Amino acid sequence: QTEAPEFGKGLLNIVGKDSTWSMKLATRMQFLTSTTWDQNSNNKWVDPHSIALVRRARFKFDGFAYSPKLTYKIELGLSNRDMSGASEYTSNAPRYILDAVVMWNFYQNFELWIGQTKLPGNIDRVISSGNLQQVDRSLLNSRFTLDRETGLQIRHHFFLHNKFLIREKFAISQGEGRNVTNGNIGGAQFTGRLELLPFGEFTNGGEYKGGDLVHEEMPKLMLSATYDHNKDAVKTRSNQGTYMVNDIGFHKTDINTLFFDTMFKYRGFSFMGEYAHRNAKDPIAKNADGSLTGDIVQIGDGINLQSGYLFRKNWEVSGRYTNISLDEDITGNRPENQYTLGLSKYIVGHKLKIQTDLSYLSVNGGTDELMYRLQFDIHF
Amino acid sequence: QTEAPEFGKGLLNIVGKDSTWSMKLATRMQFLTSTTWDQNSNNKWVDPHSIALVRRARFKFDGFAYSPKLTYKIELGLSNRDMSGASEYTSNAPRYILDAVVMWNFYQNFELWIGQTKLPGNIDRVISSGNLQQVDRSLLNSRFTLDRETGLQIRHHFFLHNKFLIREKFAISQGEGRNVTNGNIGGAQFTGRLELLPFGEFTNGGEYKGGDLVHEEMPKLMLSATYDHNKDAVKTRSNQGTYMVNDIGFHKTDINTLFFDTMFKYRGFSFMGEYAHRNAKDPIAKNADGSLTGDIVQIGDGINLQSGYLFRKNWEVSGRYTNISLDEDITGNRPENQYTLGLSKYIVGHKLKIQTDLSYLSVNGGTDELMYRLQFDIHF
Amino acid sequence: QTEAPEFGKGLLNIVGKDSTWSMKLATRMQFLTSTTWDQNSNNKWVDPHSIALVRRARFKFDGFAYSPKLTYKIELGLSNRDMSGASEYTSNAPRYILDAVVMWNFYQNFELWIGQTKLPGNIDRVISSGNLQQVDRSLLNSRFTLDRETGLQIRHHFFLHNKFLIREKFAISQGEGRNVTNGNIGGAQFTGRLELLPFGEFTNGGEYKGGDLVHEEMPKLMLSATYDHNKDAVKTRSNQGTYMVNDIGFHKTDINTLFFDTMFKYRGFSFMGEYAHRNAKDPIAKNADGSLTGDIVQIGDGINLQSGYLFRKNWEVSGRYTNISLDEDITGNRPENQYTLGLSKYIVGHKLKIQTDLSYLSVNGGTDELMYRLQFDIHF
Repeated sequence: QTEAPEFGKGLLNIVGKDSTWSMKLATRMQFLTSTTWDQNSNNKWVDPHSIALVRRARFKFDGFAYSPKLTYKIELGLSNRDMSGASEYTSNAPRYILDAVVMWNFYQNFELWIGQTKLPGNIDRVISSGNLQQVDRSLLNSRFTLDRETGLQIRHHFFLHNKFLIREKFAISQGEGRNVTNGNIGGAQFTGRLELLPFGEFTNGGEYKGGDLVHEEMPKLMLSATYDHNKDAVKTRSNQGTYMVNDIGFHKTDINTLFFDTMFKYRGFSFMGEYAHRNAKDPIAKNADGSLTGDIVQIGDGINLQSGYLFRKNWEVSGRYTNISLDEDITGNRPENQYTLGLSKYIVGHKLKIQTDLSYLSVNGGTDELMYRLQFDIHF
Repeated sequence: QTEAPEFGKGLLNIVGKDSTWSMKLATRMQFLTSTTWDQNSNNKWVDPHSIALVRRARFKFDGFAYSPKLTYKIELGLSNRDMSGASEYTSNAPRYILDAVVMWNFYQNFELWIGQTKLPGNIDRVISSGNLQQVDRSLLNSRFTLDRETGLQIRHHFFLHNKFLIREKFAISQGEGRNVTNGNIGGAQFTGRLELLPFGEFTNGGEYKGGDLVHEEMPKLMLSATYDHNKDAVKTRSNQGTYMVNDIGFHKTDINTLFFDTMFKYRGFSFMGEYAHRNAKDPIAKNADGSLTGDIVQIGDGINLQSGYLFRKNWEVSGRYTNISLDEDITGNRPENQYTLGLSKYIVGHKLKIQTDLSYLSVNGGTDELMYRLQFDIHF
Repeated sequence: QTEAPEFGKGLLNIVGKDSTWSMKLATRMQFLTSTTWDQNSNNKWVDPHSIALVRRARFKFDGFAYSPKLTYKIELGLSNRDMSGASEYTSNAPRYILDAVVMWNFYQNFELWIGQTKLPGNIDRVISSGNLQQVDRSLLNSRFTLDRETGLQIRHHFFLHNKFLIREKFAISQGEGRNVTNGNIGGAQFTGRLELLPFGEFTNGGEYKGGDLVHEEMPKLMLSATYDHNKDAVKTRSNQGTYMVNDIGFHKTDINTLFFDTMFKYRGFSFMGEYAHRNAKDPIAKNADGSLTGDIVQIGDGINLQSGYLFRKNWEVSGRYTNISLDEDITGNRPENQYTLGLSKYIVGHKLKIQTDLSYLSVNGGTDELMYRLQFDIHF
């Protein structure tokens, strides 16, 4: 049968005849306006650059098929920003499919995932873009994220002791990002992630949601680490960034990415912390004769610390500090510090909300930048 | 609950649990064949060029969310013509989203619109492409339309006296058209429209539908005017046309567009009239040193007069006269006159119809053109 | 009303109020991994090239509108491979729409089709990509298929004698493939197909499904022939391949394509055979002065023989032999033979299945190739 749930819980919940399958349909939109200013030599904010757009618009389908042990998820991106990134590597077609993955609970606490979906990477990325605490993810994410891949994942969890939950996630992927159609160019990518939840799962999966909207009665904590090895990677940010084309094809090198991250929530207070480190065997792309192509693997470190408190009537104030320290000798990029102050009004949780934030970006010896953003979210 | 309405009224009407939201899903398709001939020096029609295509294919979602005062509309274009126009300004992704807008009735007769949707421009554009009287819109529309924008709109209406309805619509937009992702380049665009309906609203919103399919018992009239000021516009037709790129970025100039339009319907008879005028502060695009880039703002005037009568069994005969007189000194374009004779068979109103028309285009001192079109429309 | 059928029979069956229309929604996904090896001069398999991708992801809508005699079908492709092929001829937009066709049973056994859909071409193509016996179609299909077109089709069937069913299908098309928006360049394309089913229709439309999954109790046979004449064709494989651009526009020549094909099924055994032949009036593309442009119409012959047997528990073993013999003098292409061994496990018929195959491609005097593929299919 077909059921229309309450606002924010999906458009339709369909259960097939004889309960042979189910599907939940959902959709969401984000409307963003943003203005940035550069700081000139007189410490004045100048050259405002503004933008207003449908930032994200998504359809999501999930449920089970044939057996409750066989579940699936499809997520489609409709906005121009969602679909951007068409290239010769994606058949010059828009990257419309975000997730298309089948998950099979083949044995006890083990799940096998097949298809395209997010890798078990840094927590800020794995949190859905509809459940963020601030308008958008941090600079750490844009520099270090592993985003989505096509391949296999094995996921397992068990209880170490009482409530102490441990999750293990492993992935083997192509290593060049999502929606690639021309095949694997470099080697494969291997990802492992370990999650420790000493006080058990957060309420309603809150370990992967921004802000403590449910006012956790008891302290909840997740400590996690991801290690990713991209063998013979051909892009400047492991499986992200640009292809390192050279005169004989591609510059290939092993790239490793490490994340430590944590989420803590208690009575409206939330804290999220991330540390990222990337290195590469040979970060400077070369042609066959050793001459440089100009591409550089973006190696270095990043820190992102974010915290918020949910006041009455679902107003939340949040702060974020992000430091990006790429290897200056290799990449030529100077250290950046960004400070963000955010304000959110959750009308119906993350499903209907208005978020605004102000960011100050300080670039060592470079041009500082101020950014103001206002975003409206609606999710069915 | 979920309800499947009768043909032409949508696919599904969904009302969420506890009436917390609603959604109506609809879809439609248009199949077009068209042939054009040029007139040669012997006054013979030669060089036929034909085309057959899925002209439009759309999904539409609308309803309310959380509160009946908060409504929304999403419209997606699926056909290649619907999605065309990908460029570096749209992340090189197809322009899949037509409308994505949230409307909030925040106070009495006031509505705030946020997102991307049609500007309150000329009537022929605002009429849905599924509700047109002839196969497609006029040349006036293709030369002067303001189409869609991202931004804000404020809409208000009141009754001056008895049935005399007045509507006021204001918009602030980016000013470069729909689905732009790289931000606002020039200044902002400001649009105001006033609509006078001395005998009240048309039946079933007929002021924005082609033809008098409901046989209005009493005369109905709308008189309206739109004024649009695009400050520091960077495209050749205000927020439409091509970007006026020059050696230091973009040629920027203020562009004003004015429309007067009217709709009248009475007992099967309908008349639609439009006048358009566009001017620009500096219509000739230049580089920094004053040399010309070749781009010209399409300034000038247009008139479109269209009328039809609905016979028995829902056959309609319609005629259209369009005159385009761009400023010949500036744009180099000669005046054009187009005469169109249309025939429509409305099987289920605009929802299932066949339309055909024959157009004769007379270009002063240029090549005349004959065009025959046949279109089939189906809307769920 | 709205009904959710059992797994594999669609997502929703909607019947409009007063039974004025119906719509069946369905979706499906295919996940493919594939690895190919080249044979080097020492007869070793080297240079493995692998790929993992969402091969196909589709939405399908069909039903009737207004009258049960007026039916329609829409199929959309979501994956990058589905949408690929954007060009200046398709408004540089992705080819998102696969089918958009309206079918009108206007008189007795006659149907008129309007829109874009598959031509009545070779059987392997007309079988849905979700109902194939092996992982993908043969080389004959990739070289000779007529795929989809925009235009008209007339379809008729009658019983010659008792169960002996005869179907006739005629099509007039633009002749340049699907999703073309810039109009007809060459002349029109004419297609005729005759199908003889001496023992009547196969169970559940099995003449256009791979494998004998229903274990036909009585032998079932279809013998068919297609003749296609593409007048003034401008692409290298009739309406497929690349445009033959020359210095004055396009090289135009008449291209004929002939298919004979057959399907036989009996008690789990199935056999499909196809023969293809293509010729052209002037297969070598030239400029106005007679100099060669480099484009060549791919003329020649192809044979595809495929057979399978369905064992207990819905395991099927299948074999395929394909020979492609293009005209070597004209095209410069050497004959190719491909041998494929396939294994399928149909968990819920074609709706939930795993298929794998191993192909050996032997190129006369060229590099031989080995290909291993594994595919998972899920259809709602």
